[in-house]
Amino acid sequence: MLKIRRVAIDTYPENTAFLLRQSNGYSAEQFQALRKIRVNGDSAEILATLALVDEPTMLKPGEIGLGEQAFRRLGLPEGAPVAIEQAMPPTSLEFVRRKIDGDTLQDDEISAIIRDIAAHRYSPMEIGAFLVACASFMSTQETLAVTRAMADVGNRFDWKAPLVVDKHCIGGIPGNRTSMIVVPIVAAHGLIMPKTSSRAITSPSGTADTMEVLANVDMCEADMRAIVAREKAVLAWGGRVNLSPADDVLISVERPLRIDTFDQMVASILSKKLAAGSTHLVLDIPVGPTAKVRSQDDAVRLRKLFEHVADKIGIVIDIVTTDGSQPIGRGVGPVLEARDVMAVLRNDADAPPDLREHALFLAGHVLDFDPALRGGRGYARAMELLASGEALAAMERLIEAQGRQTTRYAPGEHVHEIHSPHDGRVNAIDCHRIARIARLAGAPMDKGAGIDLLHKVGSDVRKGQALYRIHAQSRIGLGFARDLAMEDSGHEVAR
Amino acid sequence: MLKIRRVAIDTYPENTAFLLRQSNGYSAEQFQALRKIRVNGDSAEILATLALVDEPTMLKPGEIGLGEQAFRRLGLPEGAPVAIEQAMPPTSLEFVRRKIDGDTLQDDEISAIIRDIAAHRYSPMEIGAFLVACASFMSTQETLAVTRAMADVGNRFDWKAPLVVDKHCIGGIPGNRTSMIVVPIVAAHGLIMPKTSSRAITSPSGTADTMEVLANVDMCEADMRAIVAREKAVLAWGGRVNLSPADDVLISVERPLRIDTFDQMVASILSKKLAAGSTHLVLDIPVGPTAKVRSQDDAVRLRKLFEHVADKIGIVIDIVTTDGSQPIGRGVGPVLEARDVMAVLRNDADAPPDLREHALFLAGHVLDFDPALRGGRGYARAMELLASGEALAAMERLIEAQGRQTTRYAPGEHVHEIHSPHDGRVNAIDCHRIARIARLAGAPMDKGAGIDLLHKVGSDVRKGQALYRIHAQSRIGLGFARDLAMEDSGHEVAR
Repeated sequence: MLKIRRVAIDTYPENTAFLLRQSNGYSAEQFQALRKIRVNGDSAEILATLALVDEPTMLKPGEIGLGEQAFRRLGLPEGAPVAIEQAMPPTSLEFVRRKIDGDTLQDDEISAIIRDIAAHRYSPMEIGAFLVACASFMSTQETLAVTRAMADVGNRFDWKAPLVVDKHCIGGIPGNRTSMIVVPIVAAHGLIMPKTSSRAITSPSGTADTMEVLANVDMCEADMRAIVAREKAVLAWGGRVNLSPADDVLISVERPLRIDTFDQMVASILSKKLAAGSTHLVLDIPVGPTAKVRSQDDAVRLRKLFEHVADKIGIVIDIVTTDGSQPIGRGVGPVLEARDVMAVLRNDADAPPDLREHALFLAGHVLDFDPALRGGRGYARAMELLASGEALAAMERLIEAQGRQTTRYAPGEHVHEIHSPHDGRVNAIDCHRIARIARLAGAPMDKGAGIDLLHKVGSDVRKGQALYRIHAQSRIGLGFARDLAMEDSGHEVAR
Repeated sequence: MLKIRRVAIDTYPENTAFLLRQSNGYSAEQFQALRKIRVNGDSAEILATLALVDEPTMLKPGEIGLGEQAFRRLGLPEGAPVAIEQAMPPTSLEFVRRKIDGDTLQDDEISAIIRDIAAHRYSPMEIGAFLVACASFMSTQETLAVTRAMADVGNRFDWKAPLVVDKHCIGGIPGNRTSMIVVPIVAAHGLIMPKTSSRAITSPSGTADTMEVLANVDMCEADMRAIVAREKAVLAWGGRVNLSPADDVLISVERPLRIDTFDQMVASILSKKLAAGSTHLVLDIPVGPTAKVRSQDDAVRLRKLFEHVADKIGIVIDIVTTDGSQPIGRGVGPVLEARDVMAVLRNDADAPPDLREHALFLAGHVLDFDPALRGGRGYARAMELLASGEALAAMERLIEAQGRQTTRYAPGEHVHEIHSPHDGRVNAIDCHRIARIARLAGAPMDKGAGIDLLHKVGSDVRKGQALYRIHAQSRIGLGFARDLAMEDSGHEVAR
């Protein structure tokens, strides 16, 4: 048995354990086998990568060092006794190998893989192998099995209601913060809409990041339930309530490898919705030259896959394909997006019309799920609730219920404007490029960082006129973003 | 600029750099982007994973800590100034993504991928993605391109001779140390056979590990050339001379994922042979129920691929399929295998007959490349050179030339025998199982660890009679191996 010693080294996201190279009871060849170890404590265990230490001040014989991340995850105090053993590869890897060989897997084999992935038993390399093997071919039945398996690990909400509505966009369009408008409209109407959202991983902001500018989003299930019972809705971060945890692990590998197959997208989104207890879902698929879906043919293929899987898992789905040719609204990044959202809810005269219109369109589709409104009356009802201020009031109640944000965030004070190279008309805005620039400026970690779009597609501009303004909270962030923007602004201005 | 400080932590095989979390000039969000960094010194650079340190005794502001592995690889002294920047993903990853999407890649695209892999610019996850994408489909042209690209990075030998022979086995059969018999036979005949071998990665011993029991195998190119000039041959470890370095990187990911496609095998083997300057190659494909190739159909498919690629890169290849139904010889593990090899070369009466026969068969095929011997006279010539002691004399000269091993290795003193459960006849021996048991005993790192097979297939045994003996140098190793052997001995004894 070894005693835990906390080591002030953070190797996020990896767990790292440290052992003295000498006088530890193991010989060199065992260490080779022990590179990945299982650390077993009395009441908890973790997998960790082993690092060898030659520095006797850092560890004493009989001690095992745990880096910050490993110490936190294991959750045992310093000095607690643990045993270590070689971490054996999970048996479900055999199924991954068969998938690599071109086999189609059975439901229970897929379940075993997803369970092991959710339990952090796979290395990123092994997860990557599974994802790439799936990218080469997946049957519809396999996609369905992955969806179900993902929803089955982790938490599962049951709202004990026949109609629990939800709205989701497949992403890729900066500034597209419609959920923060749709949810208050729908709540004001009286449907149940417990919306959990993610934080941004590679985009400049997720709904949770933007909502957090206004209110607390980090809450446990009990708090979510209490708020939904009173307000019909919530706008919470989904990370705390452990819905489809396998999805978070898969995403951590999909993103760096940029694996974005339709199968994975369908499984990821629908497993979260199933776990969140949604019964009716409006799904927004933006189509555009720099969006995730770039042609109507692809949109139709994706739509059919969504409809098939949703049907099998018992979710009523209404899929809308929308214009994804440029960012939506003006602000990109948490503070700037929150500003736009509140402008729409307040019916400000200068609120971004495209954001308002897009949110009303989606809210209308969600309201159409209400049997009392069927016949396409959802849109009119959404307009009414927005115009009357009822949606704004619902938002204010939600903010109060979740806990109003005490920090006053403002747009980043370090500012740089990108100018039009000549007279002309804005012809196209590259969603990818804008997202990357905003991200380098510091969004979403720096709430005030991002981009303020001053001219959208169709706008006439003069040479030297500002196309957009980069906001950053640090000089370094501004420098990163400016360098990228000066290389290519992401705006095409036709003479 | 930061100053290097050496940190006595070994995170092999990863490079790790350490920075103070506080007062380092970077903010939290930049760190997220900086997880993988490029450390640029005056004359060298490395990629490293960044760990954050909260312990001010370990590092001072303005310092960057480098773990043992990173410090060694960068090769700059402590205190040397370095700059860090975000390590951008290599541009060739775009081709990997296209391969994942099902595209067939062009030669120059494959070259770019292989160059970046050899330069350690890919993470294990990214290498895994490339390999799995290739496993799902590879055209023959792609396999050829990978082979050429792998041979083109790293060193390339030219022996300035029209006939440079080589012999290779695709592996998987424990105890199969024929190279150490074939090379002295061929050298005694007078053909040029500069044999580079690998160390074991997942097997209990590689030819380099076993040869090292007798002689030094770790030499530079100049030493190899000098020995070959005098002795016509050499039995060296290939790791030092940097032949097809991309192969070593790919193998480090193929093994844990157990990706063993024919395409990768052909590219791996033939790229090494091309880089090593071989002109004529005898390739041994063992076929058996627990071998790498398990049916004659597969053997034919593999043979055709080898022949196609070898032909295109200008290597004359002679492929033999052999019996791979059980281990060859008695010893498994460096010391025990070296004992068997020397017994064959000395014509000892109790030398393992199967090892002797297999080596003569392969040596005969290699000698058949000699125009003077054509017409199938190679085998008789090989027998003559072995029986006359000329092969033994050639081996002794090689050992002297390479440097006789000064350490006297002996079989591991910790011993456990595995007994037959009943009277009967040995029906089958599982190559995989025997390899794993020998490996857990400590082979190849502990030279004396391994297995001594006392009864081979066809042998009659009595209940309680020893089937094999496990040797280990440590009690822990013996325990590991014994536990696995007692679960399943790998021997099938038919009543």
